[in-house]
Amino acid sequence: MNAHDRSFFTGTSAVQTPNQTALYRNPTASIQARTRDLLSRMTLREKVGQLNQRMYGWNAYRRTRSGFELTEALHAETERFAGLGALYGLLRADAWSGVDHATGAGAADSAALADLVQRHVVGESRLGIPALFVEEVPHGHMALDGTVFPVNLAVGATWDPELYEQAAAHAAVELRSRGAHLALVSALDIARDPRWGRTEECFGEDPYLASRLTEALVRGMQGNPGELFAPDKAPVVLKHFAGQGATIGGRNSAESELGARELHEIHLPAARAGVRAGAAAVMAAYNEVDGMPCAGNPALLTELLRERWEFEGLVMADGLAVDRLARITGDKVSAGALALNSGVDLSLWDEGFTHLGEAVERGLVREETLDAAVTRVLHLKFRLGLFERPYAADQLATSRTPPAAAAAPATAGRDLSTALARAAITLLHNNGALPIPSTATRIAVLGPQAATTAHQLGDYTAPQRPGTGTSVLAGLRRFAAPGVEITHARGCALTGGDTSGIPEAVALAGAADLAVVALGGSSARTPETDFAANGAAQQASSQMTCGEGVDLAGLRLGEAQYALLRAVSATGTPAVVVLVQGRPYAVPEAADLSAALLTAWYPGPWGGDAIAEILLGHADPSGRLPVSVPRSAAQLPVYYNHKDTEYGAYVDESAEPLYSFGHGLSYTTFAYGPPRLSGHTVAVDVTNTGERHGRTVVQLYVRRLLTSVWPRTLELCAFEAVTLAAGELRTVTLHLDPDQLAGTGTAEIRVAESARAALTAVPVVLRLTR
Amino acid sequence: MNAHDRSFFTGTSAVQTPNQTALYRNPTASIQARTRDLLSRMTLREKVGQLNQRMYGWNAYRRTRSGFELTEALHAETERFAGLGALYGLLRADAWSGVDHATGAGAADSAALADLVQRHVVGESRLGIPALFVEEVPHGHMALDGTVFPVNLAVGATWDPELYEQAAAHAAVELRSRGAHLALVSALDIARDPRWGRTEECFGEDPYLASRLTEALVRGMQGNPGELFAPDKAPVVLKHFAGQGATIGGRNSAESELGARELHEIHLPAARAGVRAGAAAVMAAYNEVDGMPCAGNPALLTELLRERWEFEGLVMADGLAVDRLARITGDKVSAGALALNSGVDLSLWDEGFTHLGEAVERGLVREETLDAAVTRVLHLKFRLGLFERPYAADQLATSRTPPAAAAAPATAGRDLSTALARAAITLLHNNGALPIPSTATRIAVLGPQAATTAHQLGDYTAPQRPGTGTSVLAGLRRFAAPGVEITHARGCALTGGDTSGIPEAVALAGAADLAVVALGGSSARTPETDFAANGAAQQASSQMTCGEGVDLAGLRLGEAQYALLRAVSATGTPAVVVLVQGRPYAVPEAADLSAALLTAWYPGPWGGDAIAEILLGHADPSGRLPVSVPRSAAQLPVYYNHKDTEYGAYVDESAEPLYSFGHGLSYTTFAYGPPRLSGHTVAVDVTNTGERHGRTVVQLYVRRLLTSVWPRTLELCAFEAVTLAAGELRTVTLHLDPDQLAGTGTAEIRVAESARAALTAVPVVLRLTR
Repeated sequence: MNAHDRSFFTGTSAVQTPNQTALYRNPTASIQARTRDLLSRMTLREKVGQLNQRMYGWNAYRRTRSGFELTEALHAETERFAGLGALYGLLRADAWSGVDHATGAGAADSAALADLVQRHVVGESRLGIPALFVEEVPHGHMALDGTVFPVNLAVGATWDPELYEQAAAHAAVELRSRGAHLALVSALDIARDPRWGRTEECFGEDPYLASRLTEALVRGMQGNPGELFAPDKAPVVLKHFAGQGATIGGRNSAESELGARELHEIHLPAARAGVRAGAAAVMAAYNEVDGMPCAGNPALLTELLRERWEFEGLVMADGLAVDRLARITGDKVSAGALALNSGVDLSLWDEGFTHLGEAVERGLVREETLDAAVTRVLHLKFRLGLFERPYAADQLATSRTPPAAAAAPATAGRDLSTALARAAITLLHNNGALPIPSTATRIAVLGPQAATTAHQLGDYTAPQRPGTGTSVLAGLRRFAAPGVEITHARGCALTGGDTSGIPEAVALAGAADLAVVALGGSSARTPETDFAANGAAQQASSQMTCGEGVDLAGLRLGEAQYALLRAVSATGTPAVVVLVQGRPYAVPEAADLSAALLTAWYPGPWGGDAIAEILLGHADPSGRLPVSVPRSAAQLPVYYNHKDTEYGAYVDESAEPLYSFGHGLSYTTFAYGPPRLSGHTVAVDVTNTGERHGRTVVQLYVRRLLTSVWPRTLELCAFEAVTLAAGELRTVTLHLDPDQLAGTGTAEIRVAESARAALTAVPVVLRLTR
Repeated sequence: MNAHDRSFFTGTSAVQTPNQTALYRNPTASIQARTRDLLSRMTLREKVGQLNQRMYGWNAYRRTRSGFELTEALHAETERFAGLGALYGLLRADAWSGVDHATGAGAADSAALADLVQRHVVGESRLGIPALFVEEVPHGHMALDGTVFPVNLAVGATWDPELYEQAAAHAAVELRSRGAHLALVSALDIARDPRWGRTEECFGEDPYLASRLTEALVRGMQGNPGELFAPDKAPVVLKHFAGQGATIGGRNSAESELGARELHEIHLPAARAGVRAGAAAVMAAYNEVDGMPCAGNPALLTELLRERWEFEGLVMADGLAVDRLARITGDKVSAGALALNSGVDLSLWDEGFTHLGEAVERGLVREETLDAAVTRVLHLKFRLGLFERPYAADQLATSRTPPAAAAAPATAGRDLSTALARAAITLLHNNGALPIPSTATRIAVLGPQAATTAHQLGDYTAPQRPGTGTSVLAGLRRFAAPGVEITHARGCALTGGDTSGIPEAVALAGAADLAVVALGGSSARTPETDFAANGAAQQASSQMTCGEGVDLAGLRLGEAQYALLRAVSATGTPAVVVLVQGRPYAVPEAADLSAALLTAWYPGPWGGDAIAEILLGHADPSGRLPVSVPRSAAQLPVYYNHKDTEYGAYVDESAEPLYSFGHGLSYTTFAYGPPRLSGHTVAVDVTNTGERHGRTVVQLYVRRLLTSVWPRTLELCAFEAVTLAAGELRTVTLHLDPDQLAGTGTAEIRVAESARAALTAVPVVLRLTR
């Protein structure tokens, strides 16, 4: 040990050697006492190590002929901090990490890899402190063989928190069964500008819908942990806190110019709900909120989150967000100090947090502040039982509930993924062409999304094994009645203006009874993608028009897609347009030129099955729009819950969206009776007035009348889905949370099938006693 | 007097009869004492009357064969309040008011009309209180024969506060010489979204530039009044307070979602500067700022404006803005109370303020609050000397400085208007085609803006007498050398897709040495325009694509204009494009297809002269962009002073504007030496490196380094124009206001010819001791 190292030994108590009988090792002691005891034994260097998550996890190992070996990089990292706080992305696989089936760990060998790393970390740690393994689980674990679920925007379209909770629970089982611990999940970003490439990661534009789904996520992944997390449950890091959906121009990680009101009413409720539901951690966002980037924003991280909301969990910074603060502090040491002082506990990839020891010595941070952060990291490790069961094998052996999905992972995951996809698909327009009638015996399946699953997955997905998933074409072939002739031509690529494939598609359309035209965008990263240091795509390559870093000004699909649709439509054969997309592209033509239009968002690998089932009428389309669909980028913003200001139309365009938030057709129709109010409960009679069974999402909107601030036109305050047989009537009961109506004297309650429909729905007036 | 009227007599002292020897009538007493005395004599009804400005002024009179007569409407109004507080728009003339040369008052008879009304008001007032005559003076007095100046956006392009101050002084002379008192002038709105139809009313996107011009406006109009305004000076109502330039989607009077930082750094500085310069009044804006419309926003009007800024002037509400508050208060009485309690003194057209007596009686407002507002109205009347000289004739007779412009109004006004137009014209691109060489003896003048002055004027202009002004065609015919053949075809209309006129234009272009193609937009209201109750255009009629209420999503000119430009360009004849416009339209083609491109904004009636002088090289183009020019609406926002966040390009478009804020070419070139710093003074050597004299605007930008909040990329902090002969070198000195750099430790000073150029300019580092 050299002199410099020695200077780190300035902990609050004398350095002690590890002791197997120490309090912190006693599983019967309280976590608080164990954490306090452990902290008191740690050196400054060891403490700083706990706050770091510097390495890209895929650099920690190398595949060998017989398994895995650890790299020098990992050795250097654990030596530097005499252990390791957290390791990001050990199992991450994608074009950026460069990990694929040839180099990475699959379902079969991930636990062994995790245990290999963990054994090394524990061995290098004087006090035997295990590392946290942190993984991306945005819509399924982003690892080889991880089940891919539909993206969040599709989840938003389901309006089905219960189903999503099951999917989240499944993802947690997969994650933990592979030796990882902490799940990074986008949940808090609100989709206010579809130009943003990360729109697909949002549950939609509405704070209430996002809150309900964030709660479901936390419940599903974490269970009801109490002090200890079950071995098949995963603590969640909710991304991103806060306001990232409001960056100007839809530009990734740019500033937001939000006022306090927008921030609190639109962008914070999902975080508040997640914190109340017990989320273990949140990630501070890149963007600036009213003066400072979130990672350097004490008003946000400390005053609001910790003090007002009494959040006791962990705050992680987004990748390299701490180092960015050096732009105004002058160097990375002070950048790290600013982040820690603002409320960040654990950094990601940054250099700044590696110098926290120096920051303490320079007086930039107080050691108590550092200790508080270390306490939160250690606390989470104790809650995970990592000191008792640091290895995946142990975890699984002691699981209280046998991990059903681990027993039959492929089937359970696929079924849940397909169920979510089915529930997400939203029918926007239908002139009667759907469901496909039995008289349609010749179907042409056309378009760049028709015969591939590559673009169904969304961003943040690992490479898939060949043969995984079903395309629209495959789904139709699987589910169509025998004897139906299905033809296919791609017509054009997703991007660019090459129309040379259109004549072939037109010929098939002309010879068919019905054309299914699958259009859309893609977030599929390829090895050619040029990545920024934080893994965001820096330049769109191949056919990428969406995903992190891939923002789009004009919201247009590749021009050839419009040409294809026009040409197919001109044949006179009814064209059903299926959009596979991570944001609402501006496709006003699709409404005019199609016999029916539906959006599947990114439905996941088995989206083709779900789409086919719905096209053929085996399932009722039950998705509802979680975002307003704009006519063009020029009319943005178009969210429904703007202030109650009457917008005159633009001279050249309406100010209203093409399709309203909440909109979605069924194959049957529903009638809603007038709402009946009793206390804070609203009852409404819903009748299936059509000839098929179907599901409607009963949406309760509030329109404030007498109130203390200028109200929004409408606010979604409750929803309840109900499935009814043809002709069936049921009374649906919805509950209002009085907290949502704070500051209001009277308000109208309107129950309808979409925000637009609510504008003309029969209201009932609620009078609140203030 | 009936019982109800009697109930109004609840003033703080007994009702007294008017008394010619009363203190308030004594001109040697202090204004404060006079106001206090007068207030003490007033009934509640009379007080409420002082806060009202309900009538449309043009409804107060009717033209007769021999002059004017007063209407029943005016009689009813003065009877209702036993007098009249203020009268809006007595001299207003436009399509909305329906006033034209046949029905309204021109320069010759306005004073007589004003005096007729004033005599009636004073006669109806028990205490002989004269009315304030309030007029729109956005770019010259919006009355028949009022001199029309270029719109504010053009004024912003001059970067010439001194010249603008002269124009403002001229407008004040015209206003007062016609018997009116108070000038409503747009100055505070910052142009952040060119979709907004009122962009033309903004000085640009930059708070510093807007502040300097707002100060010039106040100085020019008000002079240096001390207690009393000179008879040829006019108190100014600065419009609009605050944040109206940031309404979402560029939608007129919609909410803004601004945070405190954007509000304070971008949208408030011009107001702060105007208040410091002594502005007599501000107008509360329509838009909501973080919870409440400005007229009902005590945080803005009282806490910020009156308490923190110590503003002692008048706060006027925008038209019908008070009544809009009934949306949340439940009725107009409480709406009026909310506005008064928030800080509004004088309403405009509203019913709410007429019920303030009832509001007092219902306990919704305290009489002291009402008294404070009345005091401010009366105070302004005393400062104007209205009690001594209520009539226009008296005013002019006692003018301290003889109103030069009144002596020769047409010439002086026209010269100033033309000078502003000349200074505003901005050359964006020039491949050498300009100035038009003497070898070009055949010039084709084409396009919908070529031969008309109708669209040069902008919104808020009165009907012009036939023959007023010069078009581009007329200007070129006037200034071109003898023997130059000038031909003309319109080619197409401003709006729509009719291309039938293009062949004629192409033929002329083909036969010419040079084509001048005048394109653009229009804010010209016509009798067919459909107006909202507040006078905003409700639907664009005829060729309107800009102006209040005329917001534009796509920022595109009429499609035929693009076709015309393409066709003319295809002839091979060099095409010089002149844009006459009230916002930056998206015309990326103009840069590619033209030999030179310039924007004249709305240059006013004599804009054609100014444009011709510059095209022919009789004057150097010296305008600089006060706004960033976008490539399209899809990439908004594009202002230069965003936070220092590196924007990756959109997939389909750059995130950078087509032309940068501050950009503008000269016919000569300039070289800037490195900046030299001495204290807060920056010196830079500027050399005219070309062969002609010319004017450059030396722009000083600050780029903050070590600072307490996340900085903007650049901030304009000083500018200075300098005119140099060919080859001349001059040292230009700029002064930094240390207040502008609060919270900053070190900053780079960059001096350049545009914001974009500043990004790569040699910096000098300024260290501030904190």
